[in-house]
Amino acid sequence: MDSAITSIARAAKAASRSLATAPRSVKDAALLAMADALVARGEAVLAANAEDVARARAAGMRPGLVDRLTLTAERVDGIAGALRELAALPDPVGEVVRGSTLPNGLRLKQVRVPMGVVGMIYEARPNVTVDAAGLGIKSGNAVILRGGSAAAGTNTVIVGVLADALATVGLPRDLVQSIDEYGREGAVELMHARGLVDVLVPRGGADLIQTVVREATVPAIETGVGNCHVYVDASADLEDARRIVLNSKAQRPGVCNAAETLVVHAAIAEAFLPLAGRDLAQAGVTLHADDDAARLLGVPSVPAEEEDWDTEYLSLDLAVRVVPDLDAALEHIRAHSTGHTEAIVTSSLASANRFTRELDAAALIVNASTRFTDGGQFGLGAEIGISTQKLHARGPMGLAELTTTTWIVEGEGQIRE
Amino acid sequence: MDSAITSIARAAKAASRSLATAPRSVKDAALLAMADALVARGEAVLAANAEDVARARAAGMRPGLVDRLTLTAERVDGIAGALRELAALPDPVGEVVRGSTLPNGLRLKQVRVPMGVVGMIYEARPNVTVDAAGLGIKSGNAVILRGGSAAAGTNTVIVGVLADALATVGLPRDLVQSIDEYGREGAVELMHARGLVDVLVPRGGADLIQTVVREATVPAIETGVGNCHVYVDASADLEDARRIVLNSKAQRPGVCNAAETLVVHAAIAEAFLPLAGRDLAQAGVTLHADDDAARLLGVPSVPAEEEDWDTEYLSLDLAVRVVPDLDAALEHIRAHSTGHTEAIVTSSLASANRFTRELDAAALIVNASTRFTDGGQFGLGAEIGISTQKLHARGPMGLAELTTTTWIVEGEGQIRE
Repeated sequence: MDSAITSIARAAKAASRSLATAPRSVKDAALLAMADALVARGEAVLAANAEDVARARAAGMRPGLVDRLTLTAERVDGIAGALRELAALPDPVGEVVRGSTLPNGLRLKQVRVPMGVVGMIYEARPNVTVDAAGLGIKSGNAVILRGGSAAAGTNTVIVGVLADALATVGLPRDLVQSIDEYGREGAVELMHARGLVDVLVPRGGADLIQTVVREATVPAIETGVGNCHVYVDASADLEDARRIVLNSKAQRPGVCNAAETLVVHAAIAEAFLPLAGRDLAQAGVTLHADDDAARLLGVPSVPAEEEDWDTEYLSLDLAVRVVPDLDAALEHIRAHSTGHTEAIVTSSLASANRFTRELDAAALIVNASTRFTDGGQFGLGAEIGISTQKLHARGPMGLAELTTTTWIVEGEGQIRE
Repeated sequence: MDSAITSIARAAKAASRSLATAPRSVKDAALLAMADALVARGEAVLAANAEDVARARAAGMRPGLVDRLTLTAERVDGIAGALRELAALPDPVGEVVRGSTLPNGLRLKQVRVPMGVVGMIYEARPNVTVDAAGLGIKSGNAVILRGGSAAAGTNTVIVGVLADALATVGLPRDLVQSIDEYGREGAVELMHARGLVDVLVPRGGADLIQTVVREATVPAIETGVGNCHVYVDASADLEDARRIVLNSKAQRPGVCNAAETLVVHAAIAEAFLPLAGRDLAQAGVTLHADDDAARLLGVPSVPAEEEDWDTEYLSLDLAVRVVPDLDAALEHIRAHSTGHTEAIVTSSLASANRFTRELDAAALIVNASTRFTDGGQFGLGAEIGISTQKLHARGPMGLAELTTTTWIVEGEGQIRE
């Protein structure tokens, strides 16, 4: 007999079939119905959320995490608004990626089609529940959601609201299902639901990613660990460098595209580090500096240990290192990069070209903040996560990354000689 | 201390860096040097191969497999010719996939870059050793090869020849390495070489694929299991259907895009099956028929068991089933498809549209042979395998599928508000 997770995955697979051939108008109607329902039933959502928040506080959850967990009427409106924006985006399904007529007359086209069933494992952020459901529906996929247990009450209500909304436009409720009630065992079973789950997107810390890598037999996409560097080259414009470093570190320190290490060319360190040190100290950033940097920063710092170069702080901390030249900078970044985002500030075309050609990451940025690596910022409309792997999707994953392709071949009796 | 496989993978990673930024001219020169060297040292290759073949024969290897293992002077010329054709193909690296200027003035482009290190596990076919090395080099990747043990002697000589040729154009020998000598343990270690091997391409039977799915912690692409169907619709042109069925089954029965099941609409079964039965019997095909088909085929058949519908024969065997309508055909194919290639023969536009919209496979073919699902036939120039998974690559995998992408972002001091 099927386990609960297998039954859920089978129901998702069956539901995904009716969505795969649904025209855009039906999918967009579903998204708008979901948005309306969330607002209409906002009180029930907020009541469930208030209970989750109270329980989390009582359990001593850190304030930053409590903030991510908390919903307000304004936040619910924002989440509903994101669904409406999704409805306005082009449908990725049916896009012809390439095509040609072969010498034997066969017409060949490669067409985007839905994956089928997308599994999503993520932290206690109720907005991700809605975003993932919306991106799934728009890209023609059923979704199976496993959110952080701290948000389980909120998620249960939200998933009910979304499923009801799907039913009002004639789509199966099973397109959006939660497995929160099955705990960690349920999540591991989801990782093993081979043939039923077409792709698994884990979104969370290094522990979750490691578990998925070790356990998953379904195809998975790694997301989100970002030990991002900003390298200030010898020829950098000092004011650009100050603004980019401060923004990359401090504009929102808890996210994966925030900078974690500042690497400075020795030739500019004496001019730049006192300025940067003052900016960063004023913003409340703790600096973990190597000896050269500590001497030049002009503000207090703590000594950088070897492990600082590999730490994704996700907080107001920044490692700082002075290097003798561009080669040493590239070498440092290569050794410690997680392949997310690396930025250079320079006025040298040669340095910019070497940086973007010789490093290997999802995003390589010249003279701008690391914080731009984001689906919304890149104009992809929305994102389900930022892939740091090389297979299938690299960088911000939007709607197209939730599809696969089929080759359609049309002939009139051609056979192979 | 590093194991032998880890050392090899580290050397491959280091070597891949020098290739990643090599211009097309260097890579093409390498491919031509590899082709020339194979022909020049053909005698050594053939001598090693003769020993492998003699050992395989003595061990009782099946003739079909011995044929795949066997090299001749002509086959070596053909293999070298394939390298020269690769040199003539466009370079996938550097291709700009998409790009735009964002409202804040940032210039964004998504550019193809090499994966880095490609691991390849395959059967005892020496031509795959050369094809994989060639595709790897052209796409800017280092390759680590694990061929079937029966071809180990041949592969050792070939890898030596290819590495020597790389050295003559100034590229590192470590771009092409074999781990044949480390046996199965070596292959499993390769599956675990996370962070060093960027993608693993297993090419072989269901057993190998299962092992990779279970064991691999490096990203892997499934290839090649094809339980392909040909469905003959009520309105099919009888002569087209005869030729397509015969070609799909018998033109080369041992490959993954050969048909394994014939599904026939009841309304045309009486007219079609006697014709198809004669064609297939003359070609030496054993028919595994359901009751209705057995009655109509007009030639001897064996009863189809339930397991026949799921068997990839890879031989002159064909399962045959009569269905009452298109819905039943779609249902049968959905239940037994491995997602490789499904073909319909029909003159009905509605049937063709339902077939291509409602089924889910790498290739969906209307009025042509299943045998066309092939990188060469599709005009991709060459293929490293046929993916039956949905992530990253689906269907024939050519040079582009051996690359990933990087987002390059250029600005003049932009920060995020």
